[in-house]
Amino acid sequence: MANKLLSTDRFFSSDPDQRLTARKLYDGICNLPIVSPHGHVDPALFSDPHANFGTPAELFIIPDHYVTRMLYSQGIAPESLGVPRQDGGAVENDHRKIWQLFCNNFYLFRGTPSGVWLLHALSEVFGVDKIPNTENADRMYDFLSEKLASPEFAPRALFERFNIEVMSTTDAAQDSLTQHQAMHDSGWKGNIVPCFRPDNVVNLDAAGWRTNIDALSAASNVNIMDYGSYIKALENRRQYFKQMGATATDHAVIAPLTIEMDKTEAERIFQSALQGKASVDDAARFTAHMLMEMARMSCEDGLVMQLHPGSLRNHNEVIFQKFGLDKGCDIPVATEYTNNLRPLLNKYGNDSRLILILFTLDESNYSRELATLAGHYPAIKLGPPWWFHDSLNGMARYFDQVMETAGLYNTAGFNDDTRAFCSIPARHDVWRRASANWVAGLLVRHMITQMDAEDMMQALTVGLVKRAYRFS
Amino acid sequence: MANKLLSTDRFFSSDPDQRLTARKLYDGICNLPIVSPHGHVDPALFSDPHANFGTPAELFIIPDHYVTRMLYSQGIAPESLGVPRQDGGAVENDHRKIWQLFCNNFYLFRGTPSGVWLLHALSEVFGVDKIPNTENADRMYDFLSEKLASPEFAPRALFERFNIEVMSTTDAAQDSLTQHQAMHDSGWKGNIVPCFRPDNVVNLDAAGWRTNIDALSAASNVNIMDYGSYIKALENRRQYFKQMGATATDHAVIAPLTIEMDKTEAERIFQSALQGKASVDDAARFTAHMLMEMARMSCEDGLVMQLHPGSLRNHNEVIFQKFGLDKGCDIPVATEYTNNLRPLLNKYGNDSRLILILFTLDESNYSRELATLAGHYPAIKLGPPWWFHDSLNGMARYFDQVMETAGLYNTAGFNDDTRAFCSIPARHDVWRRASANWVAGLLVRHMITQMDAEDMMQALTVGLVKRAYRFS
Amino acid sequence: MANKLLSTDRFFSSDPDQRLTARKLYDGICNLPIVSPHGHVDPALFSDPHANFGTPAELFIIPDHYVTRMLYSQGIAPESLGVPRQDGGAVENDHRKIWQLFCNNFYLFRGTPSGVWLLHALSEVFGVDKIPNTENADRMYDFLSEKLASPEFAPRALFERFNIEVMSTTDAAQDSLTQHQAMHDSGWKGNIVPCFRPDNVVNLDAAGWRTNIDALSAASNVNIMDYGSYIKALENRRQYFKQMGATATDHAVIAPLTIEMDKTEAERIFQSALQGKASVDDAARFTAHMLMEMARMSCEDGLVMQLHPGSLRNHNEVIFQKFGLDKGCDIPVATEYTNNLRPLLNKYGNDSRLILILFTLDESNYSRELATLAGHYPAIKLGPPWWFHDSLNGMARYFDQVMETAGLYNTAGFNDDTRAFCSIPARHDVWRRASANWVAGLLVRHMITQMDAEDMMQALTVGLVKRAYRFS
Repeated sequence: MANKLLSTDRFFSSDPDQRLTARKLYDGICNLPIVSPHGHVDPALFSDPHANFGTPAELFIIPDHYVTRMLYSQGIAPESLGVPRQDGGAVENDHRKIWQLFCNNFYLFRGTPSGVWLLHALSEVFGVDKIPNTENADRMYDFLSEKLASPEFAPRALFERFNIEVMSTTDAAQDSLTQHQAMHDSGWKGNIVPCFRPDNVVNLDAAGWRTNIDALSAASNVNIMDYGSYIKALENRRQYFKQMGATATDHAVIAPLTIEMDKTEAERIFQSALQGKASVDDAARFTAHMLMEMARMSCEDGLVMQLHPGSLRNHNEVIFQKFGLDKGCDIPVATEYTNNLRPLLNKYGNDSRLILILFTLDESNYSRELATLAGHYPAIKLGPPWWFHDSLNGMARYFDQVMETAGLYNTAGFNDDTRAFCSIPARHDVWRRASANWVAGLLVRHMITQMDAEDMMQALTVGLVKRAYRFS
Repeated sequence: MANKLLSTDRFFSSDPDQRLTARKLYDGICNLPIVSPHGHVDPALFSDPHANFGTPAELFIIPDHYVTRMLYSQGIAPESLGVPRQDGGAVENDHRKIWQLFCNNFYLFRGTPSGVWLLHALSEVFGVDKIPNTENADRMYDFLSEKLASPEFAPRALFERFNIEVMSTTDAAQDSLTQHQAMHDSGWKGNIVPCFRPDNVVNLDAAGWRTNIDALSAASNVNIMDYGSYIKALENRRQYFKQMGATATDHAVIAPLTIEMDKTEAERIFQSALQGKASVDDAARFTAHMLMEMARMSCEDGLVMQLHPGSLRNHNEVIFQKFGLDKGCDIPVATEYTNNLRPLLNKYGNDSRLILILFTLDESNYSRELATLAGHYPAIKLGPPWWFHDSLNGMARYFDQVMETAGLYNTAGFNDDTRAFCSIPARHDVWRRASANWVAGLLVRHMITQMDAEDMMQALTVGLVKRAYRFS
Repeated sequence: MANKLLSTDRFFSSDPDQRLTARKLYDGICNLPIVSPHGHVDPALFSDPHANFGTPAELFIIPDHYVTRMLYSQGIAPESLGVPRQDGGAVENDHRKIWQLFCNNFYLFRGTPSGVWLLHALSEVFGVDKIPNTENADRMYDFLSEKLASPEFAPRALFERFNIEVMSTTDAAQDSLTQHQAMHDSGWKGNIVPCFRPDNVVNLDAAGWRTNIDALSAASNVNIMDYGSYIKALENRRQYFKQMGATATDHAVIAPLTIEMDKTEAERIFQSALQGKASVDDAARFTAHMLMEMARMSCEDGLVMQLHPGSLRNHNEVIFQKFGLDKGCDIPVATEYTNNLRPLLNKYGNDSRLILILFTLDESNYSRELATLAGHYPAIKLGPPWWFHDSLNGMARYFDQVMETAGLYNTAGFNDDTRAFCSIPARHDVWRRASANWVAGLLVRHMITQMDAEDMMQALTVGLVKRAYRFS
């Protein structure tokens, strides 16, 4: 199959002047390497040189909650898509049937980012030249299966072909990072680094918190008996992550509340938690306090701090009970930054050692709170459009609503935040095209010069992300 | 007067490529019949074969709160526009003078949806070829009066000329639906169905609640003495509405709070209400509980459930006291869906029998909460831009902010929501043009194929609305 | 240096049809005089015929918090930009070095409104033909210094050259207005009027409130001993401001809460405040009550009432402690209007004597609350995009989200709100171009006629602002 699915001018404005300008700007940066500072790809794909992606259904459907949520929204049961049940109950295990069902319903992805990413991966990574549908599903399944069985489509081979300069995974604080160690030991040159994400030891109400604390003790060789040893264990793990190449931490909260507690209160709450008696309010206050602590540690050890607030996890308890975490039922809530972050910013926001990258699922904050905070505090950089907003329109709204007030140079470039490895080139391509279209829009309206435009494109593609994540 | 007011290319992008593409897509669907699943047209216009629209002022000005609010915002007294006073006090009754005042101020509607609808109705329905102004007011009044007196401009004749396949009215739970019965009895073939809207018997603080309950008793032949009989009466009325052709219910609340109460609490509050002693908090909780009950009934009887939250009714008490309900002083408030709807969605959102159509007056929810909820829960479909957002820009924002995340196929097509019968073709025309322009924008940026585009246009015009409202 | 920095077509759509249409509309109004009804230019620049703007750093950098915040966000210390410290500590006083630092970092302003204003002032006011950079900084400093020393660049000369018909300053209630008096006495013909801004005597928790009250007593010749005399003093000052040419008042609050208190409560709180004992809640309620009082006074004396809610002042306490007020660390918060303003609007919103101009930093309110309120209440006019939103994209969002529902004629034209006198032509030029582009967009999509468009441009440039601020 030859490669005709994607137009070279896709996503650019239909205005001939802006389109041509955008294409030229895009051509100037489209071959730059990919810098992927935040994502959720499984490092095990790369630690074992013989790892592979499995069937087309395993690659494109079963683990991708973007795909399964959309199919579920139209009443297609996760079981029929092969999504494993928590209770081990039966689900479809004929992957050809799963693929057929997916292709039958591919029209649902028209005009969606998932549709864009899927078509890009099919076309650019695998050389498919048709849009999946009922008729071609079977043939396409064979075609993809054959490719996936070949060494050219092994994870490491694709990592190299994708021209990824560096990619970060996301790892729990108590994670042993054995996959990362194995990668280093294997002598493979791919640059994959971990990211320190301590949510499930910091949020006292996280599922399995007590067990996670034991694992943290074990991983850190610090016997966690009190608040002091807990902090020490976290500091220890940050050091280890850093040694393994990490440059950043990541923190997910409902509200980005920050509170400085005195040690006595922190100790009291921590002891309650150890005894399984922390209240909901205790847990919220402790998380708020730990954000302050994490900012302090970042000042000291130089790890960049990422903050992802505003996602109400597992909104649909039926799906959560049956299928577990990350099944497409995390739903955003309105988020307040100005008051919530004030204590943290007053203490650390003027500190030149801190980089705090803020994300949002509440776009009403782009122009109201986030751009104004980033346009003032030296520590703040704004992360790119996150999750549902990592789309062509989402990026256009971000450029429109953020850049004038924050200034381009207070943003953090792009990150793909994906579990779906083969979608990485697609996602960066959308960003690069959206960036080129935005910069072209400024240029054709005579707001910047050609030299400005070219500099800005370099910044948007590699400069800002490397600076924000301390990769250079 | 010949017909020159409206350009055939109106509302499309000025980019020649997108414009031509949009026009072709529009031409492919512009003659499809109108499906109008939600609105407030008075059924009495159709039950009597000799009904007519009255004077131009009665048709275009006096009952249209979109028109009178804009004129009032510029200091023009409702009395001078003939809006009836609650106390029966004097108002202007020279309709020619009212029409003149309206025409003198027609410039106020420049660039507004009311302006678009009025010009479309004047031009396309009546053949007017001038924009109303001080000079032509008098002549236009004569011209329109003559038309309105002719049988071609009777409501039934226009219903047929407008090519309306089905139109829904909105009716209180205790409404006898005698107008609908009369329509059926008359043998007229126009398909006009009722919609079950129980707000004024469900919201305990509704004006006249106690009287409404008596009316509900009478209409249902269920003697409402307690919570159980109240529920039975509502179920009974839903059955009757269904027999009369209804496919949907509608619910207006300030916040879309949902709470499952036990029967004891529901009974306690209901009894308090019967005695006129329900507290404000009781009323809010009871409404929240009744939304759950209505979802349960919808699962059982198949009526589609519409939810319209976020309008603070009668904000201006001066106007409300003088002129009553629906006089242009309902003002939106910020609305939260994620937490408020969670109990209802956890109980019924995965139920394939339920269709729940959500609306909003708070556009910050398009991309934050509504698109993500609709892109996950099988029960949810998103209604079109509502009320103030039923406009060209409002539609563009909806397409921009909703579609990528929700997916087109989780939306519910268009509804006109109008009291002004002659604005129906105008409103659907705006939607069809806005749809064509949006789809054309995807096509010229190479995001979808020509076949996708044509399918999507069919869906946007008739497919989605028929499926969402169970008309097919 | 000749003048080549700015394209005559800047900011217009790149679509050839819309661009040409916009340019023609712009050409029709670009020479109209500037009406500047709200701003913060220091009247002392005009009371002394020999006043001058000082060095390039004093004109463009040191006092401009838009400029210093962006530089600070990138870690450039305010001290190094010559921003005076509260404690009198050392700051850079070599203005050539400050200018060099600014030019080194001028790229930070790419695509920002500050960048647009700075380039316009440099190019159109001073004749600079290069974008500031490291290499040209020194030469440009000499060039500008020479200009600034010449009489053609004195404030009064530029006021005349800018073709400013009227400009308002902003002045505390207790301000003696001696600069305004001196201007009048000097016989200079420039029309500069004061605006009555009583925040620091109305907000009981304002820094120095007690001292301000004494100053208010002195200025008004009313011995303020109780609530009654306080109100009398305020009424007295309003009269004086009116005599000095004021047509408006201005009020800044966090939330636009309005409460009608009885005199007993008002007196109780006022007495507590005099004794330094008012609680935080007292202060909030008193401010809410005083908004009602100010609306009452506006009905009586005809001063237009401006309301600027939603800015959390001095978010960064480190910067506030070191450098004081207005240093770029005021951050917006979400703002609620519908419920908060209801008491005021129910009492005065239908009063034809009141004009209440509303502003926002929370754009989610444009389409939700503000446009709907303005499209109903006769007293309300919507102010233009404020502060961070006074930008090309901010204006486009305003036109997009406000106009359909509010109607153009319920808006208040433009105001520049600037401290930076030389940015006034730039800011009005952006508004005029953005307006022309918006109106052109309506015209090329056949939504309005050519005559409509020309009328709307006149309104946007001078008509609406003069009517809203009672300048004509």
